[in-house]
Amino acid sequence: MVIPALIEHKRDGRALSAETWATLIREYAGGRVPDYQMSALLMAVFFRGLEPGELAALTDAMIETGDRLRFDGHPTPVVDKHSTGGIGDKVSLLLAPMVASCGVAVPMMSGRGLGHTGGTLDKLESIPGFRTDLSLAEARRQIDRLGCAMLGQTPEIAPADKRLYALRDVTATVESIPLIAASIMSKKLAEGLNGLVLDVKTGSGAFLRETERAIELARTMIALGEARGCPTVALLTAMDRPLGRACGNALEVEEAIEGLRGSGPADLMAVTYALGVEMLLLVGAATTPDDAHRRLEEAVRSGRALETFARVIEAQGGNPKVVEDPGVLPQAQAVEVYRADRGGVVAAVEPRRLGRAIVELGGGRTRVEDSVDPTVGFVVTVKPGDPVRAGEPIASVFARDEAGIALGLSALQEAVIIGERGRLTPLISHRITARGVEALADGV
Amino acid sequence: MVIPALIEHKRDGRALSAETWATLIREYAGGRVPDYQMSALLMAVFFRGLEPGELAALTDAMIETGDRLRFDGHPTPVVDKHSTGGIGDKVSLLLAPMVASCGVAVPMMSGRGLGHTGGTLDKLESIPGFRTDLSLAEARRQIDRLGCAMLGQTPEIAPADKRLYALRDVTATVESIPLIAASIMSKKLAEGLNGLVLDVKTGSGAFLRETERAIELARTMIALGEARGCPTVALLTAMDRPLGRACGNALEVEEAIEGLRGSGPADLMAVTYALGVEMLLLVGAATTPDDAHRRLEEAVRSGRALETFARVIEAQGGNPKVVEDPGVLPQAQAVEVYRADRGGVVAAVEPRRLGRAIVELGGGRTRVEDSVDPTVGFVVTVKPGDPVRAGEPIASVFARDEAGIALGLSALQEAVIIGERGRLTPLISHRITARGVEALADGV
Repeated sequence: MVIPALIEHKRDGRALSAETWATLIREYAGGRVPDYQMSALLMAVFFRGLEPGELAALTDAMIETGDRLRFDGHPTPVVDKHSTGGIGDKVSLLLAPMVASCGVAVPMMSGRGLGHTGGTLDKLESIPGFRTDLSLAEARRQIDRLGCAMLGQTPEIAPADKRLYALRDVTATVESIPLIAASIMSKKLAEGLNGLVLDVKTGSGAFLRETERAIELARTMIALGEARGCPTVALLTAMDRPLGRACGNALEVEEAIEGLRGSGPADLMAVTYALGVEMLLLVGAATTPDDAHRRLEEAVRSGRALETFARVIEAQGGNPKVVEDPGVLPQAQAVEVYRADRGGVVAAVEPRRLGRAIVELGGGRTRVEDSVDPTVGFVVTVKPGDPVRAGEPIASVFARDEAGIALGLSALQEAVIIGERGRLTPLISHRITARGVEALADGV
Repeated sequence: MVIPALIEHKRDGRALSAETWATLIREYAGGRVPDYQMSALLMAVFFRGLEPGELAALTDAMIETGDRLRFDGHPTPVVDKHSTGGIGDKVSLLLAPMVASCGVAVPMMSGRGLGHTGGTLDKLESIPGFRTDLSLAEARRQIDRLGCAMLGQTPEIAPADKRLYALRDVTATVESIPLIAASIMSKKLAEGLNGLVLDVKTGSGAFLRETERAIELARTMIALGEARGCPTVALLTAMDRPLGRACGNALEVEEAIEGLRGSGPADLMAVTYALGVEMLLLVGAATTPDDAHRRLEEAVRSGRALETFARVIEAQGGNPKVVEDPGVLPQAQAVEVYRADRGGVVAAVEPRRLGRAIVELGGGRTRVEDSVDPTVGFVVTVKPGDPVRAGEPIASVFARDEAGIALGLSALQEAVIIGERGRLTPLISHRITARGVEALADGV
């Protein structure tokens, strides 16, 4: 395998064969292709893209470098959700127990936060004792018992993707739709799913800001899933404002628990239910959207969803009392209220600014190896479009000390714009399936 | 310095500042920027190019990582030639002693062969004992004494370029005009020249096959040279056929010596004189092209050029008897004549096919660390346009053994096409200066 010739081939806009991708990724995972050749190839892919056959071959090759969850003979269908990530996005924490409580297995494999977006693993780990580093065997046993496990990408799953992602992160080759799609789908397809629902974020706080690019990513991932026997559906949801009120790891766990109690913020609950409806329908666990919605509501109202979450927390070493007493979560040393500096209408709550501030407060990562402070963050109680009076409390900062409070208040001043009512993008704007793209009227 | 942000900047088509390039190259040369980030950046440059200010900054930065030759107070002007490389191109071996014999110093710093093209250093090293690894101090002393030194890129000259070139070679980022220009000019500008003449090859055997790209490279290098106080001129010369008759290291030394004796092949001598005329004019060592030509002819006719070559060989440890007795050169174990398989007109002599065959015979490199067999190669006595009779001897193969002979004969069968007279490209097609591009009528 003459690597420079392969790079040149891709560089000049020609497709590499499926066999070539398979060999290349196997050799890379085995440490026999140096990073400096792979990063040049990744940059060529950034500019030239991948043909569908190449994308499929790359994805399969990454899966083949590792093991996978196997649910052959499992009594229930298996479904998962993936989000491209945003500020305040704690949907996984609600959705996994809700869907599992409807008799569908959920092997929720998540990531850590990096840059301005948070990660489900970091949120879960703010629960004292909670471990996310389950092996595939442990996850499988827990799913058999509880219908749900919430774990990180184990070293057994697509190790080539793990190495490639780390390389992309330091070589400015992350923002490539085929590379993003291959990375996400290699992990999700290794979960042995009967269905996958994608939450693709759009707007200023999203990884891909433009709707067109988000739709392209969704369609690319759907095509990959469907071709591998995993029915896949995507919803495009708004990330031009935070989702829910809480932003920050422990704060978001608290809000997720409120949601599982039936009293979560309307936007968070709307996105959670919409994704849950798709999950149930995709694997035939409900007959109609209304039926699916009813089943999910019933799981919440009956307390089964909260109970499932508590059992998952306990099974993974965490303190299950957290579902009754949020005081179990670590608490910020300093808290301060932020008040509207003028009256008017909230024109914007900039999620990216808040995400950056959480990193600055110690609650996020600029490097993979950074540890995070689970206590810091924001609760923003207003949404774009809300009227506010001057001096009205509209947010809180949670920080380690007074310096953090000052930093947080200044971030809020920049992030929360009070002025004229702006154009609100729909919370859930598109539903995308293998059959096409459907623009939705906003339900919230 | 946040490298991924710089790569992203370039990737998205924006220019990096001169300070950024300076820091980046200094840090890379110091081993503080990993190859995998540099190769991603190089691939981004391949796609996005470099703005003139970036190119100048990159070139200067590479020069600054090393030392340079200094000729302040030197009694004669200093001039050099650079060729982009081709098959049978032994011009440097003639030109350096010819120009030095006209009272102009020539610090001829050359490279090794890689891929299908040969390298001047390998040719020189086929002379028993000849060493090309002079230090800058040794080269400077020899130039003071003999007016000429023929050396390799010392570790003191632009070490960042050396490291970058090795990286480009294995990451398919060689064929980028700004990167080629920066690499060549960083070495040449470190020679402390008063003038530089570029021999930019075009045609099927050239590194850049298309005339437009060759002109673009020439203009880019001329702009770089002129902006740094080094008057620079380029000639575009044909590499759709080999230059001269001999292709292969020792065979080419023998032909160069014939040339210095006044009996070289017409095409080789025409290119050599044309480049020599530019060199003398550029530094004011001749008043007109005719004057320059006369001086060079006189250097050959008088034997001074050959004598200078002998003294340079002796000074660099080689056996100077080679200029009288080519039998001093290592000789191939097996030699075989190749005969025209049909009558007609020579339509083409494919230089790239011959270059590849020399590598296969052991006379070239596929990796930098390969050693080369100086004895192998070809002598092709016909040129495109020549009439031939069936069975007429038109070439010879020089090899290690019978297997090599078979390989060489088969390469000749593919490389030498007999058929209709094709369109002959001019031997010297363009003259390019800071003022513009001049198309030339062919003199040969």
